[in-house]
Amino acid sequence: MPRTRLALPATGPVRLGPDAHAALLPATAEVQSGFWYARREANASTSIPQGPGLLESAGNLHNLRLAAGTAEGEFQGAYPFVDTDVYKWLEAASWQLAQWAPGEGGPGTARLAADVERIIALVAGAQCGDGYLNTWFQLREGGERYRDLRWGHELYCAGHLIQAAVAHHRATGRDELLDVARRFADHIDTVFGPPGSGRPIDGIDGHPEIETALVELYRETGEQRYLKLAGYFVGRYGHGLLGGEAYCQDRVPVREAENVEGHAVRQLYLLAGATDLATETGEAELRAATERLWQAMTTTKTHITGGLGAHHDKEDFGDPFELPNERAYCETCAAIASIQWSWRLALLTGQARYSDLIERTLFNGFLAGVSLDGESWLYVNPLQVRDGHTDPGGDQSARRTRWFRCACCPPNVMRLLAGLEHYLSSTDTEGIQIHQYVTGRYSGDLDGAPVAVRADTDYPWQGTVTLTVEETPADRPWTLSLRIPQWCGSYRVRRGARTYDESDAPVTDGWLRLEGPWAPGDRVVLELGLEARLTAADPRVDAVRGCVAIERGPLVYCLEQVDQPGGGLDDIVIDTAHPLAVKHRPDLLGGVTTVVAAGHRRRLPAPAAGWWPYGSADADAGAEAAQAAEPLELTAIPYYAWANREDGSMRVWLPTS
Amino acid sequence: MPRTRLALPATGPVRLGPDAHAALLPATAEVQSGFWYARREANASTSIPQGPGLLESAGNLHNLRLAAGTAEGEFQGAYPFVDTDVYKWLEAASWQLAQWAPGEGGPGTARLAADVERIIALVAGAQCGDGYLNTWFQLREGGERYRDLRWGHELYCAGHLIQAAVAHHRATGRDELLDVARRFADHIDTVFGPPGSGRPIDGIDGHPEIETALVELYRETGEQRYLKLAGYFVGRYGHGLLGGEAYCQDRVPVREAENVEGHAVRQLYLLAGATDLATETGEAELRAATERLWQAMTTTKTHITGGLGAHHDKEDFGDPFELPNERAYCETCAAIASIQWSWRLALLTGQARYSDLIERTLFNGFLAGVSLDGESWLYVNPLQVRDGHTDPGGDQSARRTRWFRCACCPPNVMRLLAGLEHYLSSTDTEGIQIHQYVTGRYSGDLDGAPVAVRADTDYPWQGTVTLTVEETPADRPWTLSLRIPQWCGSYRVRRGARTYDESDAPVTDGWLRLEGPWAPGDRVVLELGLEARLTAADPRVDAVRGCVAIERGPLVYCLEQVDQPGGGLDDIVIDTAHPLAVKHRPDLLGGVTTVVAAGHRRRLPAPAAGWWPYGSADADAGAEAAQAAEPLELTAIPYYAWANREDGSMRVWLPTS
Repeated sequence: MPRTRLALPATGPVRLGPDAHAALLPATAEVQSGFWYARREANASTSIPQGPGLLESAGNLHNLRLAAGTAEGEFQGAYPFVDTDVYKWLEAASWQLAQWAPGEGGPGTARLAADVERIIALVAGAQCGDGYLNTWFQLREGGERYRDLRWGHELYCAGHLIQAAVAHHRATGRDELLDVARRFADHIDTVFGPPGSGRPIDGIDGHPEIETALVELYRETGEQRYLKLAGYFVGRYGHGLLGGEAYCQDRVPVREAENVEGHAVRQLYLLAGATDLATETGEAELRAATERLWQAMTTTKTHITGGLGAHHDKEDFGDPFELPNERAYCETCAAIASIQWSWRLALLTGQARYSDLIERTLFNGFLAGVSLDGESWLYVNPLQVRDGHTDPGGDQSARRTRWFRCACCPPNVMRLLAGLEHYLSSTDTEGIQIHQYVTGRYSGDLDGAPVAVRADTDYPWQGTVTLTVEETPADRPWTLSLRIPQWCGSYRVRRGARTYDESDAPVTDGWLRLEGPWAPGDRVVLELGLEARLTAADPRVDAVRGCVAIERGPLVYCLEQVDQPGGGLDDIVIDTAHPLAVKHRPDLLGGVTTVVAAGHRRRLPAPAAGWWPYGSADADAGAEAAQAAEPLELTAIPYYAWANREDGSMRVWLPTS
Repeated sequence: MPRTRLALPATGPVRLGPDAHAALLPATAEVQSGFWYARREANASTSIPQGPGLLESAGNLHNLRLAAGTAEGEFQGAYPFVDTDVYKWLEAASWQLAQWAPGEGGPGTARLAADVERIIALVAGAQCGDGYLNTWFQLREGGERYRDLRWGHELYCAGHLIQAAVAHHRATGRDELLDVARRFADHIDTVFGPPGSGRPIDGIDGHPEIETALVELYRETGEQRYLKLAGYFVGRYGHGLLGGEAYCQDRVPVREAENVEGHAVRQLYLLAGATDLATETGEAELRAATERLWQAMTTTKTHITGGLGAHHDKEDFGDPFELPNERAYCETCAAIASIQWSWRLALLTGQARYSDLIERTLFNGFLAGVSLDGESWLYVNPLQVRDGHTDPGGDQSARRTRWFRCACCPPNVMRLLAGLEHYLSSTDTEGIQIHQYVTGRYSGDLDGAPVAVRADTDYPWQGTVTLTVEETPADRPWTLSLRIPQWCGSYRVRRGARTYDESDAPVTDGWLRLEGPWAPGDRVVLELGLEARLTAADPRVDAVRGCVAIERGPLVYCLEQVDQPGGGLDDIVIDTAHPLAVKHRPDLLGGVTTVVAAGHRRRLPAPAAGWWPYGSADADAGAEAAQAAEPLELTAIPYYAWANREDGSMRVWLPTS
């Protein structure tokens, strides 16, 4: 049962402006128990409360005091964007506070509220008189600003400050941080602008982020000039202001780009901002570009986990279909950015595919980034760790770490989990749309009349979702739209005495639309077919040729060495002719449904027998056929739960021969 | 025909000391025409002569003048090791000069000799009074030395200076550069040593190189203390002096290591030095370590091209069997270092496998590093360039470049090609061993009596090598040992009226040993079976599952987009049931034998048809079976010749279904 009653926050990330051209309006949900409740509990009770201590020991708070002149010593941290760790934590803490009605979160609430207040005061204290704020440049660069836009991250930092401020204002109604953010934004608006605007610098930041933040600031304050400034920044990428590098999103203008490229997080934050902009302005060209780029990304540059970014080097997207396993970068922040961008596209277009990707990313590429206990993290999320892996340690380790030198991911996870209820449902003039299934309460309003639907489910372990109408206008029929996930091969829906399936309740644009009228107590039972399945990739994904992945529902599975008898994983073959079995294991990894497959171990030549691992293709085929297999029962666990036990090898894609 | 008569140089790289414990003695050969003659001609007539101009325009020579106080301006170049570009060029030019008897190289000889003299004077002028020499630290770091051994490259630079000096001395008999090198080495010997040695610093360089150079300096001067200093440096890696990083070879001591790791070039230079040391000292533990590490490397971490280094990030070896294609780093310098190391092991052990790897690397992973015209270069040598590849430019580009910001590879290629004749043959008390087949003359001596064997061959296009004894002692039988390459499935050898094959002329340790007596004019005709073949990899090489490579003789082949009708490469499948055809094309790429295979293009879904490239494994198999193939004739060219025409995609490994 919930530890506390989860009150409805006023609003979450992405509050559309009054003139927005979106198909859907974001709605709110309460997550009351089940899978995501448990993940959010770890976030609320462990990850977020540990934040201030970690920001203190890493020196981030010290830097703010230094800038304020209230402490002495050296600047701490290796990057000009260390302030953002503080801002992202403040955003996370704000969304968290919004869930607790005053006095109802227990002692933790008061402590968290006090921490937020204390840290906001540090941020405010560090701000320059003219609104500028970046401790690295204030303390290390002799106060010289904006002289290295390619690497300086000053506007990027401003963006995260703005997002934190908007969250704090939306969550608490308080102005302290919003005032700081507005002063900084107003300052930036006096410095940056196109030639002829009277601003001294025509420039953009090497790391996009301020664009989406400025649109949110416009939404929160109603000030059109923030929207205009966001539009200016979005439009200036791709014109060589940063040397024309793809890394900085400066090779091709957004409106002309044909595929995502360069540093994955930079690309995705920029596209979130571009989508925000298209949503508010209604510009068709920009909207078309974001839709085109999303499709190119999902079709050619997305790992099965939803992970994004193929290269360690430069943290960038690779070429189309270049999707390595052991060297998949798949930064946790890129998964978060992908969710943020897709949600904006879901609202803009009304199409369910965007929430399909959100679901896949949430349950896999994103969630693997934090340990089950909320204490440790992965920055990169590979799809394979080999037998004999030599781990380099550091931020890019395939082993979980308490905190990172570049600590962008942990507070980013915190803010997404703390605000997750804002990514689950929406409304439009026709009714309510349920994008993600949780046990809880989805609510919104139709022309001012409250609508609420309660959901009960053991998703993703079970495919049944029972939906009960709790509030509805008496005289206004409306449509309950249920997303039928892209992975789902068959479904049934019971409504009253009748049961429908694919044949008589078809899906359009990913939605199963159940029309009203509705009365309180009306019940719909959705059953999503949840058979474990074997998945193959487009043949152009060279890295997984001859392999399959195990999936069940929205979950991608993997093998971890510790679950398999007798040795490593790199000689294992899955026998696809045998059916998959499913076993729920409440004892394992906080309770997971495992998938059991049949396989065997290859007989491999001992390394001492030769020195060259390449030979005749004919001989190879013969040897393969002649080998006597050692049968083996393979136990697969959900990918999100890997790296929570002893170190060892892991793989998502399993060879079939 | 040769442009000049190639005189025998006195000695080449790796002149063993008088007490060396090697099985074989390096011998010399003249390369008089054929495949390698042409490659060396481009090196001699284009690459090496262009060096001084490129070193001038890149600022390397300017830095030397600055350090000497004979010029003014800013230090040029981004790295503390820019001096080594000069040293490697001097080494290359020295080996080149050694091939031209005085007055016989035409005007080029005199110009090259003058350039060498001029640049040696610049180097000498830059040296500090106490022997120290590194323009970066002299000019940029206020003269402060050895304060950043992890990154400073000071001993690395000294190593290349020493190698250049040894080459210049061996090639010309002159002392100018050797004196500079000895002064620096003597200085280093006063600074570095174990605790208790009276030297102020117990340390090693983050980039090994000085170790092998010091052994060569010992060999050239007879000074035991250089050997001792080399032994000290080799022994101190792996003890945490550099923080324990694998990148710097500091995680595990050489004698304890089980596999190669970290930065590939650093690892390989260190192991070349360790092998030199074991050769001179006879230490069994160190010898066993180098043999063990070589086998672990070839078995688990070597690309089919001989290329080494799986990661762009940190330029390092990956895990065992982690051998990507498009992101293969395979730095040209790593191929060179591998050849240098393997040659030392070939001499130490007498086993032919080391020259098998040298051959494979020379013809593939190494030679791809330089364009056919000797004008442009590849730093990294991927095994695949995808359709739609977005090239980042810069040093790590998959497109050839005139020179690099980090210009380590081009002069490294120059020095290896200029000294290539020293890697081809050896002698021992039993006779002469031919490691690599060229048209030319292999010579040595047996107990002071000259032995010479002439070879004529169109290798690697043809498998026939005709060997004629030209000089032999009259009364001393000896053994002519011919390496039967590891790739060779069948061979025949005619000696006088008799023909032998595998059944009656067996190979031991890779050698076909033909015992004397021999008389001048005796002829042996070796025929190596040169059928084009399809090669598969150990199943643990995940990156090439379900693929084959085309090989013929020592050559690995690849497809380039320009040779295939109708589009890109990523939808191509090779049909392995059809026999391969071979076609020599004198018009193509300077004359290459192409291999023609049957294949087809897959029918692939248009990207617009969906947005998710993963689906049911069953459906995939069905779709594959149902597809109507577009038959296609695939034309493969030798890998070394790729990237000499228009930009496009390329692949070595071809899917079979």
